Amino acid sequence: MLENIDMLLTVKSNEYKKNMKVLEVKLGELQRKAWELKIPIILVFEGWHASGMGEDINRFILHLDPRGYDFYTMTPPCNEDFLKPFLLDFWTHTPRRGKIAIFDRSWYSRAIIKHFGKEKHEEKFEKCLEEINWFERQLSDDGCLILKFFLHISEKEQENRFKEIKKKGIPLILSEYEKKNGKENGKENGKENGKENGKNLDFIHQYNEYMPIVEKVLEKTDIYYAPWTIVEANDRNFATLKIIMTATQAIETHIEQVTMTPGQQTIKYLDIGTSKLHELSGSTLEKTDVSKTITSNEYGKSKKLYQQKLETLQYELFGKRRSLIIIFEGWDAAGKGGDIHRLVEELNPRIYRVVPVGSPNDVEKAHHYLWRFCEGVPEAGHITIFDRSWYGRVLVERVEELCSEEDWKRAYREINEFEHVLIGTGAIILKFWLHIDKDTQLERFESRQNDPQKSWKITAEDWRNRDKWDFYKAAANEMFQKTSTANAPWIIVESNDKLYSRIKILKIISETLERELKTDF
Amino acid sequence: MLENIDMLLTVKSNEYKKNMKVLEVKLGELQRKAWELKIPIILVFEGWHASGMGEDINRFILHLDPRGYDFYTMTPPCNEDFLKPFLLDFWTHTPRRGKIAIFDRSWYSRAIIKHFGKEKHEEKFEKCLEEINWFERQLSDDGCLILKFFLHISEKEQENRFKEIKKKGIPLILSEYEKKNGKENGKENGKENGKENGKNLDFIHQYNEYMPIVEKVLEKTDIYYAPWTIVEANDRNFATLKIIMTATQAIETHIEQVTMTPGQQTIKYLDIGTSKLHELSGSTLEKTDVSKTITSNEYGKSKKLYQQKLETLQYELFGKRRSLIIIFEGWDAAGKGGDIHRLVEELNPRIYRVVPVGSPNDVEKAHHYLWRFCEGVPEAGHITIFDRSWYGRVLVERVEELCSEEDWKRAYREINEFEHVLIGTGAIILKFWLHIDKDTQLERFESRQNDPQKSWKITAEDWRNRDKWDFYKAAANEMFQKTSTANAPWIIVESNDKLYSRIKILKIISETLERELKTDF
Repeated sequence: MLENIDMLLTVKSNEYKKNMKVLEVKLGELQRKAWELKIPIILVFEGWHASGMGEDINRFILHLDPRGYDFYTMTPPCNEDFLKPFLLDFWTHTPRRGKIAIFDRSWYSRAIIKHFGKEKHEEKFEKCLEEINWFERQLSDDGCLILKFFLHISEKEQENRFKEIKKKGIPLILSEYEKKNGKENGKENGKENGKENGKNLDFIHQYNEYMPIVEKVLEKTDIYYAPWTIVEANDRNFATLKIIMTATQAIETHIEQVTMTPGQQTIKYLDIGTSKLHELSGSTLEKTDVSKTITSNEYGKSKKLYQQKLETLQYELFGKRRSLIIIFEGWDAAGKGGDIHRLVEELNPRIYRVVPVGSPNDVEKAHHYLWRFCEGVPEAGHITIFDRSWYGRVLVERVEELCSEEDWKRAYREINEFEHVLIGTGAIILKFWLHIDKDTQLERFESRQNDPQKSWKITAEDWRNRDKWDFYKAAANEMFQKTSTANAPWIIVESNDKLYSRIKILKIISETLERELKTDF
Repeated sequence: MLENIDMLLTVKSNEYKKNMKVLEVKLGELQRKAWELKIPIILVFEGWHASGMGEDINRFILHLDPRGYDFYTMTPPCNEDFLKPFLLDFWTHTPRRGKIAIFDRSWYSRAIIKHFGKEKHEEKFEKCLEEINWFERQLSDDGCLILKFFLHISEKEQENRFKEIKKKGIPLILSEYEKKNGKENGKENGKENGKENGKNLDFIHQYNEYMPIVEKVLEKTDIYYAPWTIVEANDRNFATLKIIMTATQAIETHIEQVTMTPGQQTIKYLDIGTSKLHELSGSTLEKTDVSKTITSNEYGKSKKLYQQKLETLQYELFGKRRSLIIIFEGWDAAGKGGDIHRLVEELNPRIYRVVPVGSPNDVEKAHHYLWRFCEGVPEAGHITIFDRSWYGRVLVERVEELCSEEDWKRAYREINEFEHVLIGTGAIILKFWLHIDKDTQLERFESRQNDPQKSWKITAEDWRNRDKWDFYKAAANEMFQKTSTANAPWIIVESNDKLYSRIKILKIISETLERELKTDF
């Protein structure tokens, strides 16, 4: 692939200037148009070391309005980076609609660094590339334009540049410079990180060893919705022009598509192929017997038992660096708050956290719907309890028509992929649907309304939702069928009796943790 | 101070339960009221190790609505933490109006860890405590309620608890547990950090050695706007009750003050005592001769010269771990964009960034006005160019009456303190005011409006601002007088001639960097 590239392409200085004059104006216009149309754009830069990426990126962003782009450069990984799936970090940096995110090295470099040199991890590397493809497809499906540039120079040219750079006294990598010149200030850590980082970035000196890996990456991830552009970068002016021309053309085309055929784009999505459906005995809500109860005596005993178990298990989870994600969905007034209260009563707040999910704010609305959940995903060793979750997409957003039919239909697969990635890095996922019948809901609504301490809990929205009970039921049933997977099952919790509900949840979580923590991940 | 505490205070279990039942309800009500009134609340927890902080905090947050609080626990510092002033990290975690931020260890622990064992740093420690007092006062002046709890147990009790904890197999500090049980996953870094962290947290085992430091901290930072409450924590029920009672009372009182005397609170602020005013020759705008020019030939030569200087100086800055903050303010159409363009043209985008500052979004509006700038403050070794800045408080917010007179009057001191802290950690600060006369502005407005490529740059707001020229002038002049300090001077740039303006800026930055980088910080 890279061998056949013609590295002799050049552009003369006056030609470069002439072209740039035109492109500058064009780029500015396109940026403003993309902002108006709320199109998010991602530009990825990868390439050989000393291929001139920094300079090219600077020549690019000079012509952008700084309010409209964010620039992310790869920094030496901090310990926290290892505690979450590596793509999450990039998820949080995806641009809001209308903005441009520019990545100076990206998930690709991170993936290569993670896996290079570990032959046995070949399979994991493949999986990693697959996850990258999912990630980019999900963003593209959401309307994001993704362009990826690989700056290619020949080995000989690279050698020359290394010499030139050395002569000038400019650091090859910033962190190398830092290591040499490190002041007392950050020495303790700086030293370690410099070393770490130097080692991580060795690949930039090993052109031939890395060639096959780079080719593999380019081949496996060059996809119509996120194509690679190989940039012949022996000549700097040529490289800059090619990047800016490619980008302007692609943005222009994208804008044309968006404006010319509104609503006519055919977004294709495949079936959920990634995960086997979990056997759901009594899965659907109709079959659930909500009337199960326990005595108050049993309750007290069981609560104590399971809370103590969980208190111990949380430290085991922490020690084994696994993580636990617990999702609570269900009918209004089904008792989520009370259930969560009993669940965390004896836990350590340094290990668990509760993430309540309401309607998205303006910044959240301007992103992919999964974006806002990334921050709440627990680090290795931690527990997050989501009080409502990303399933809002296929529940409230579906029923209230807050997104298009295509959007929520596509979401089943996206959510399965998202959870699959989390599970792949050691997360244990449990999803509870708290189920009550319609009469019980009515009783609880009324009693809340009559209790001055609790009346704030009940709003007009709750009553409106209640009117749409059957629509929500249909949505919930489809959700169970399409997203209950072996590793992230839905559990329907009979909750007419609050005590029964609490114990069932405590019990299932304890038992799942005991089972999962017995085996090494 | 701590010696005289009566450690024998206890509460019986049934008394505890009875009280908690009442407090629970009260706390919930107060939280909702504080949310309605948009009062931000900060709760700080510090204390001896094994004093039961985690448990007490959990007992506290169990009764809060999770939508209304954020919990921050102290994590082992990551390398990036050393690259910025330590308080900035906490600045970013200050709560938005209406929310509660709970700190499980805080800036106090960070300050103690930073300075303990380094006798020579005694003076720095004092400075650090002073900065903490500024920080808390600024938040308090902005309406934030700050409560600080120190959980106190006797040395004997601590020993007993260590034994008990060990017997139970529960980790004393989470990161210690991690170190012992660290899986391959995060080993490379985990090990280093575990060690680092273990060392950092040694103080928890050295009760007597730390006693005088703790007492000093408590004494120096116990201030009416952010008082310490010593919590006798030998008895857990007593501790919990004392914390929750103190908190509910304080919140209640604060709410009463806010609701009963709206607008009548007398916020007192002192004079700017922290920094000497810089000698400003020709400081006021009237005295500035805006007609200075240079020839196009001179411009070309000088631009090349200074851009090359800056290209080299940026790496020196990086190597020495200093940082550079450049602020651009000035009249609309004075040429900020063009000046910034020439400034960064030959810089490395991995070192510099441009932060454009517009009107705050909803989330930003819900915080202290300095909050949104914290993220843009450069790490050690980096450059941030602010295109407009925190000076908006005393310019546009003053003139357009977006804040009260008290607010902007207080801001001079706050800004000086803020910059003083940045300078104290190695930042070089330069503040440019681009000055043009009113006729030149009119010419530029008209030419922009007539140029289809540039007409987007000019809006009705620009014309409105122009009408208030004299008000802005008065605000600018007062700003120069009150915030031009020796280490962060205002420089008025004569900008009727754009070429002159660009060169003056490039020259001043180069010369300042050369001078500053010659001496060790």
